[in-house]
Amino acid sequence: MANEFAIIEQYFTAIGNPAGTTLLGIGDDAAVVDVPADQQLVVSMDTLIAGTHFPPDTSPADIAYKSLAVNLSDLAAMGASPAWFLLSLTLEQSDPRWLSQFAGGLRQTADTFGLQLIGGDTCRGQLAISIQIAGHVPRDRFVTRHGAAVGDIILVSGELGNAALGLAQKQGKVELPSALQATCALALNRPQPRLELAPFLREIATSAIDVSDGLVGDLRHILDASHCGARIDRVALPVNAWIEQHERYDYALDAGDDYQICCTVAADCGAEIDRWNREHPDCRLTPIGEITEAGYSLRVGEDLVDLGKRQGYRHFD
Amino acid sequence: MANEFAIIEQYFTAIGNPAGTTLLGIGDDAAVVDVPADQQLVVSMDTLIAGTHFPPDTSPADIAYKSLAVNLSDLAAMGASPAWFLLSLTLEQSDPRWLSQFAGGLRQTADTFGLQLIGGDTCRGQLAISIQIAGHVPRDRFVTRHGAAVGDIILVSGELGNAALGLAQKQGKVELPSALQATCALALNRPQPRLELAPFLREIATSAIDVSDGLVGDLRHILDASHCGARIDRVALPVNAWIEQHERYDYALDAGDDYQICCTVAADCGAEIDRWNREHPDCRLTPIGEITEAGYSLRVGEDLVDLGKRQGYRHFD
Repeated sequence: MANEFAIIEQYFTAIGNPAGTTLLGIGDDAAVVDVPADQQLVVSMDTLIAGTHFPPDTSPADIAYKSLAVNLSDLAAMGASPAWFLLSLTLEQSDPRWLSQFAGGLRQTADTFGLQLIGGDTCRGQLAISIQIAGHVPRDRFVTRHGAAVGDIILVSGELGNAALGLAQKQGKVELPSALQATCALALNRPQPRLELAPFLREIATSAIDVSDGLVGDLRHILDASHCGARIDRVALPVNAWIEQHERYDYALDAGDDYQICCTVAADCGAEIDRWNREHPDCRLTPIGEITEAGYSLRVGEDLVDLGKRQGYRHFD
Repeated sequence: MANEFAIIEQYFTAIGNPAGTTLLGIGDDAAVVDVPADQQLVVSMDTLIAGTHFPPDTSPADIAYKSLAVNLSDLAAMGASPAWFLLSLTLEQSDPRWLSQFAGGLRQTADTFGLQLIGGDTCRGQLAISIQIAGHVPRDRFVTRHGAAVGDIILVSGELGNAALGLAQKQGKVELPSALQATCALALNRPQPRLELAPFLREIATSAIDVSDGLVGDLRHILDASHCGARIDRVALPVNAWIEQHERYDYALDAGDDYQICCTVAADCGAEIDRWNREHPDCRLTPIGEITEAGYSLRVGEDLVDLGKRQGYRHFD
C-alpha cells in the first residue's frame, strides 16, 4: 500500500495555483508565506468527520468540496478573500480510487475559489478531514460578531433550510417535489460559500457570522458577543415554498449546513441593501428582523416566541 | 453533556499569552493576525491519532504536550520562532477530567514555548488532535531540505533512539536499567523541540529536517530534495550506552519520535559547531557523516551498508 509520502506526492502536490505570496509549498517541514503589507491574515480550522458532518456514502469529490466550503464560509463571514490552506487527511485505508476522486474535487474547488494547498499530512484512522484555511483582509477591515448595535437590521443571504431538507429527503424523512429535491441536494452537497459578500460586509456590516449550526444558534453568538437582543419575524424568513406550505420553519431556524451569512447593518442602509440585491440576484440579502436592547424572540403572527432557551445544533448535546 | 461552544469557552479561551500580533483570537468565525513587516510566516499542520501516534492510555497532559511538540519541531527545523496555533480536537466523549488535564497541559506547553491558541474547533469521533502551528522567520532566512551540497557535514542534535527505546520498554520488549528507563520515558512523552537551534540553522545550515520518522528516512528527504547522496558512520551516531552495548542501532536509525534535528553545514564550519557545543551542552550537535554526489550508505567498521532501499517508519506501509 502507498505510504504517507507517496500519497502526498502523488495526489496533493499541485492543488491550486501558486500565489505570489507562497515562498515554499508542500514538501518540506513547513510552508513559508508572505502576507502583503496592507493586508492581515484571517485563519480558521474546521474538521469534518464521516458520519457526523457528512453521510459515510458521500462522494469523495463532494467531501472535498464541502471540507473547503465550510472553511471558505468562515472567511466570507470575516470579510476576507481566500489565499491558501493546509490539509490533514485521516483515512481508514489508502484507496487509490477514493484518493484520486477526493484530490480531484479538492483541485477543482481550490481553482474555483483561488486557493492553494501548501501543506499538511495524512494518517490512518477514522475518515476525517481537517482543513486550516487562511485569507487576506485589508488592514483592520475584518468583520466580527461583536459590533451589532440596537436598531440594526438583521439580514440573511440566500434561502435557509434547503440543506437540512436535502438531508431529510435523503434519509427518507420527507418527500419533496423533484425540482426542489435537486435544489436541496445541491444545497446539502455543494453549499456556496458567500465570498462575494465579503466586500459588502467590510463596507456596511456591523457584525457577521456564517450560518453553520442553524440561524437561531448562530445569531445568538452575535447577540452574546455584541451584548444585545434581537427580534426576528418568521414571515420574513427566506425559505422555499415547501417549508412555507408545511410550516416546517424548524428547518430554517435550527438546522445547520446552509452556510449562508447572517449579518447586521445600520438601519439607514436600506439603499445599499437594495443596490446589492439588484446587482446580486443569486445572493440576495433578506431583512429578517432587528437588533434590540435585550431578549431574543421570534414573531409568529401576533405572538412572540421566546428564543432565549432554544438551541441550535450542537455536536456534544 | 457540555456542547462544543461550552467546551471551547470553558477550557480553551485563555491558552498562551496574547501576542501583539493577534488582533482577534478565539470566539469568532476566524482569528485575525498581523505578521511583522520584517518576518515571514512558517506554517505546518500535524495530526496525532490515539493508537497510532500515542498509546491510548497516555496521560492527557502528555498528549497535549506531544501534539504541540511535534509541530514546534517542524518550526525549529525551518529556523522559525513559535507564534500561534489552531487546535481541532476530536473526542469520543466530553469528559471534564480529561479535558481539564489536556487543556492544562496545552496551557503549560504554550506558555513554555511562547505560543498562543487563537482558534479551532471540537467534534465527536475517534480521539485525534490536529494542530496547525505558525511561526515567524526573518525575511528569506528560512531553512529548507533542498540546500545540501557535496562535502557538507551531516549533523544531528542530542541522542537518537531514546524515544523508541522508551516505547519498547513500555511494551515489555526490552528491559532497561532504571536510570535509562527514566531518560527514555521522558524522550517518548516529552520530546524537546529543538527551538534553540533555530538561529544556528538560519546562520549556518545548508539544509535541515526534524527527525520524526527515523534518521534514515528523514535524511533521505534531504538527499531527495537536494539531489545528492550521503555516507553516515554508525560509530559516530549519538546513542546511549545500552544501544551501543547491545548493537541495537536500528532504534537510532529507523525509529521516529526523537524530534531531534538533522542538518547539513559546509565542511569549513567546524569552529561554529565547536562553539555551539561548548555553549549548548544540552543540545549538542554530532557530526555523523557527509554529503556525497550519489548513493546512500552506512559505514559499519570496514563495511558499507546500502541504505538506498531501507525505509523509515511510514504510516501507510
